[in-house]
Amino acid sequence: MAMTLYGYWRSSATYRVRIAMALKGLSYETKSVNLLKGDQKDDAFGQVNPQKLLPALVLETGETLTQSMAILEYLEAVYPDAPLLPQDPVEAAKVRSFSMAIAADIHPIQNISVFAYLKAEYGANQDQTQAWAKHWMQSRFPALEQMASQSTGQFLFGDKPGLAECCLIPQLYNARRFNVDLGLFPSLLKIDARCAELDAFKAAHPDRQPDAPG
Amino acid sequence: MAMTLYGYWRSSATYRVRIAMALKGLSYETKSVNLLKGDQKDDAFGQVNPQKLLPALVLETGETLTQSMAILEYLEAVYPDAPLLPQDPVEAAKVRSFSMAIAADIHPIQNISVFAYLKAEYGANQDQTQAWAKHWMQSRFPALEQMASQSTGQFLFGDKPGLAECCLIPQLYNARRFNVDLGLFPSLLKIDARCAELDAFKAAHPDRQPDAPG
Repeated sequence: MAMTLYGYWRSSATYRVRIAMALKGLSYETKSVNLLKGDQKDDAFGQVNPQKLLPALVLETGETLTQSMAILEYLEAVYPDAPLLPQDPVEAAKVRSFSMAIAADIHPIQNISVFAYLKAEYGANQDQTQAWAKHWMQSRFPALEQMASQSTGQFLFGDKPGLAECCLIPQLYNARRFNVDLGLFPSLLKIDARCAELDAFKAAHPDRQPDAPG
Repeated sequence: MAMTLYGYWRSSATYRVRIAMALKGLSYETKSVNLLKGDQKDDAFGQVNPQKLLPALVLETGETLTQSMAILEYLEAVYPDAPLLPQDPVEAAKVRSFSMAIAADIHPIQNISVFAYLKAEYGANQDQTQAWAKHWMQSRFPALEQMASQSTGQFLFGDKPGLAECCLIPQLYNARRFNVDLGLFPSLLKIDARCAELDAFKAAHPDRQPDAPG
């Protein structure tokens, strides 16, 4: 039995895991959970992940792992080839800090569940939820750009992509959906272009997923 | 030169790091950055952490680490005594998932910067920001409670506190500030009570910090 990834083509957190799996050359089956229809809130998916969030990775043993960053750390520990993190703890902390600046301090704030609450409680319309999403990216991308501009390698931290790119590329995909002016972030765009040339990032792209609209 | 922790007595993310430092018996100096006055947005602190978020840990070498979860992983790698994570990668993934359910999917959404944006853009008053904070805790604590109820040990994952408690205890402190009905979460409260008896958690408590109001 192969690993099974519960996800959704456009889910940023699922996209992170797809990139890591592809970088490490791991195969898996996919099960689609439609975020727009709210399928992640159904009891059926609640049995898989009580947090009712994507993604969830079911291992060959039947164990289920949840939270993308926890899954990425697991993959790194068990499949050390094509490392996502540098060996040196200080350098690893810098990679994790960049990653968490996205995974904690940008993405969850502009997620679909926050939009739903903004609509329900504040009557926010689509323009307003779009402005909300843009705000968190535009105000927090400059710190990412500063970190990226200090890279002396081809990627964010050295000459190979890793955990930081697993987080950055989905966030940039998300930024384009919300019309963030990415011209302000040339170092991030340079990394994005380099990643786009790699097979792992091509395979993980939302448009290439079986549940993406045709 | 000792390590220096830039933080704020009531900052949940700083509180996480204080607990880990205390569990591992590490000494450090503190520098207070007043979140209520917005000192984290000043250029002076921006020199320390371009992300302009707390905490930041300056190492003895002068290197600065940011993002609490990245700092906790660093401490775990460099000071393995009093481990925050189990050795087994699947078990470690469960601990990290619980931790990230707080550090990514609860805390950043009900953070001071989100309140500021809600006030500025939606005219939210104090009751409304309080309701906002409560919503994310009340809707996402049940999954934490379910995980906690499955523990067979004295703490969340076994018989010693670790990464998950570093995240849970500050979040429960935060929940009390926002009047969340914690009676709904008996397993979380049981862990909270056990942690409260330990010196490390006592030393890390917000009220015990030098910048707390007297």
